[in-house]
Amino acid sequence: MKNRLLLLTIGLLLIVGVAGAQHMKVQPAPNGITMPDGFRDWRLIASSLRSDNNTMRVILGNDTAIEAARNGKINPWPDGVTFAKIVWKNRTHEKWPTATIPGDFVHVEFMIKNSKKYVSTGGWGFARWLGMDQRPYGKDAEFAQECFGCHLPMKENDYVFTHPAVIP
Amino acid sequence: MKNRLLLLTIGLLLIVGVAGAQHMKVQPAPNGITMPDGFRDWRLIASSLRSDNNTMRVILGNDTAIEAARNGKINPWPDGVTFAKIVWKNRTHEKWPTATIPGDFVHVEFMIKNSKKYVSTGGWGFARWLGMDQRPYGKDAEFAQECFGCHLPMKENDYVFTHPAVIP
Repeated sequence: MKNRLLLLTIGLLLIVGVAGAQHMKVQPAPNGITMPDGFRDWRLIASSLRSDNNTMRVILGNDTAIEAARNGKINPWPDGVTFAKIVWKNRTHEKWPTATIPGDFVHVEFMIKNSKKYVSTGGWGFARWLGMDQRPYGKDAEFAQECFGCHLPMKENDYVFTHPAVIP
Repeated sequence: MKNRLLLLTIGLLLIVGVAGAQHMKVQPAPNGITMPDGFRDWRLIASSLRSDNNTMRVILGNDTAIEAARNGKINPWPDGVTFAKIVWKNRTHEKWPTATIPGDFVHVEFMIKNSKKYVSTGGWGFARWLGMDQRPYGKDAEFAQECFGCHLPMKENDYVFTHPAVIP
């Protein structure tokens, strides 16, 4: 009797645990792209600030992106490159009124280079997750055309706005 | 005779090589701090933009800093933490006029936490290297008092202006 109760308890705990983990998992973007693992640990490519929507951004790159940037292989960027652009609301520093710093987190967005897989969007897969609860952006897979449309002015730069920041 | 000439040539090449390498090496700061190795590969802590001197910055941290930031151990920061603040002139993006991006590199500066070694400057060692040729900042070791003076308003935050940016 005791053993059956123990087994039942373990079983229930397992069910609760799996359900909890599924709830925590970030849902894929509507075009099937899943959030790249470990982007928080990627290395620096550049930063930017947009006064039109009061946000600041840091652009990180995976190892392939960092290697390409350091070797000047950036137009086109090679397949395998992934950029993460992390976006926050502008905030004024409490002790330095002329300094703008990252405030609330807005979203994180990715560009994944695969010149065969993403032909219809310039060789880049686009994805974005909104807010601290990381909701996928876009109603259906067509959302990527909106991203691509915005990047069209950068066609001569492999559709990439970011220029790697110079560090000696 | 031929062997002696060969040895002489090799010897001369070695001398030239060593002299060249020494010339390339970044000189230590006037307080003896040497440029931390590999800071370009450190991970992200935050970014900022200063409208008073038209510069933008990215703050990276060594492994100890990243671990402390992720565990909320930031006031005080533990010994062993090092921050690198990389500074560029503001530049307007050529295709997005309301976007500010990193232009010319200005300098890189460091804060190194060692509560015993750097008692006179709040437990932090300060150092800065200017320009693409990485010239040490400061005439003598007293320069660090200038850095520390500027950081005094942040005394209640362990003398650190930077707040780690939130990433979900």
